[in-house]
Amino acid sequence: MGTTQLDSVQEPKYWHLRTVLSEALDSEFSVGEILPNERDLAARFGVARATLRQALEQLELEGRLQRRRGVGTTVAPPRVGVAVGGEQHAWPGAAGDAWQAVDCVQEIPAAAVAAALETGADEPVHTVRRSRMSGGQLVATELLHIPAASVPGLTAIDAPSGAARARAVLRELHHLDLEGQDRAVELGSARADDARELDRLPGSPVLVVTTRFTAQGRTAALSVATYRADTCRLTFGDSAGVEIHHDPAQRAS
Amino acid sequence: MGTTQLDSVQEPKYWHLRTVLSEALDSEFSVGEILPNERDLAARFGVARATLRQALEQLELEGRLQRRRGVGTTVAPPRVGVAVGGEQHAWPGAAGDAWQAVDCVQEIPAAAVAAALETGADEPVHTVRRSRMSGGQLVATELLHIPAASVPGLTAIDAPSGAARARAVLRELHHLDLEGQDRAVELGSARADDARELDRLPGSPVLVVTTRFTAQGRTAALSVATYRADTCRLTFGDSAGVEIHHDPAQRAS
Repeated sequence: MGTTQLDSVQEPKYWHLRTVLSEALDSEFSVGEILPNERDLAARFGVARATLRQALEQLELEGRLQRRRGVGTTVAPPRVGVAVGGEQHAWPGAAGDAWQAVDCVQEIPAAAVAAALETGADEPVHTVRRSRMSGGQLVATELLHIPAASVPGLTAIDAPSGAARARAVLRELHHLDLEGQDRAVELGSARADDARELDRLPGSPVLVVTTRFTAQGRTAALSVATYRADTCRLTFGDSAGVEIHHDPAQRAS
Repeated sequence: MGTTQLDSVQEPKYWHLRTVLSEALDSEFSVGEILPNERDLAARFGVARATLRQALEQLELEGRLQRRRGVGTTVAPPRVGVAVGGEQHAWPGAAGDAWQAVDCVQEIPAAAVAAALETGADEPVHTVRRSRMSGGQLVATELLHIPAASVPGLTAIDAPSGAARARAVLRELHHLDLEGQDRAVELGSARADDARELDRLPGSPVLVVTTRFTAQGRTAALSVATYRADTCRLTFGDSAGVEIHHDPAQRAS
């Protein structure tokens, strides 16, 4: 399209600065290095602080920069590939699952979750909280909603609470024959509690992966997982994922 | 975790406002409705304009609000599920492909693309530009990089340029036996040209889906697709995708 369309829309100033900054990151800075403060950067590039901040936000979205409380803005390492969907269907908690059970509560879920589970509005479900590490860092948190009907053999006595309870719920779930699963990925913003665990500010961009597990012709479990969008690249399919660094500035067409 | 952790981190003001605004959207506004201007909203909620803007940005990230040039801020319809990966492997341009070929050029790709394709740094590749519609709207643009070695039977005479050339390249590609494909999804920011096509501002958050197609033991094609993050939910797997609206505010734990 670039060859036929008129380039009539002027490039915003922050976008131009973003490109210049991106090149400076490549040539002058190394991974982990702390950037000069905003005032110095704005002076160096001859722009207003607001323009600088917009450009820094772009580069953060693209995973080039990280802003950390108490540290400042640093040059980010390449994103880590985190395997999300394989070809194989498997229950949460099955062998090889990358998630660790943290807690389990019985609760009335949010209306949207109840609708997806096709449970009644006042029907409590087991909500397992899990977390996922990669490279020594917490990269995702998950709420896994399991209707009581999916774990009919579960007794209160098995394990009353906490991670042990979560594992008991998952063991029960594995008695069902998993028929299929589907997933959706979308952009979200981190809830306050997820943000705290993921070491982000509330509202930081996150990738929300919703997975529905079906058994006996109905939804047997619903997982809502929140991945750090700054450090994670979600991979699907045969191998460990595509190793390409997405740089919007580079393009030869 | 919410039951055991100390809530010692204070909720930022914009995050609280985001929750209040979210509730107001549910109760007072309907899809497509234009919000009052920023000054009026800030006055109504008794906050500074900067705080209001941060809260609006949150809601935009979550797909609740849309900001459109010349229109203002409107209440967004639910995101559209766009199928990205099925269980079946298929070449780009195979039957049922949702993408439309737009253009094709032969060019030296960016260094990262050349590395992923394992072509030499100065080796030109065919770059097919495609676009994807959903519900009458352009939801994604794609650059599909195909090394000359993947389409050895292609002649310059087949179709010299444009969409016809793109289709000729894809037809040639189909002569190879597709062995596998893997995908990665990550957060990106829209390049100026993609932004223009997608009717977004440069730097708007986008979901970047990179797909590597393998044949004869090597990378035969590399697709980099840019989806609107505000209106799209990418779906994977068996069915048309999970119909859950992600609302970070609602949670009963």
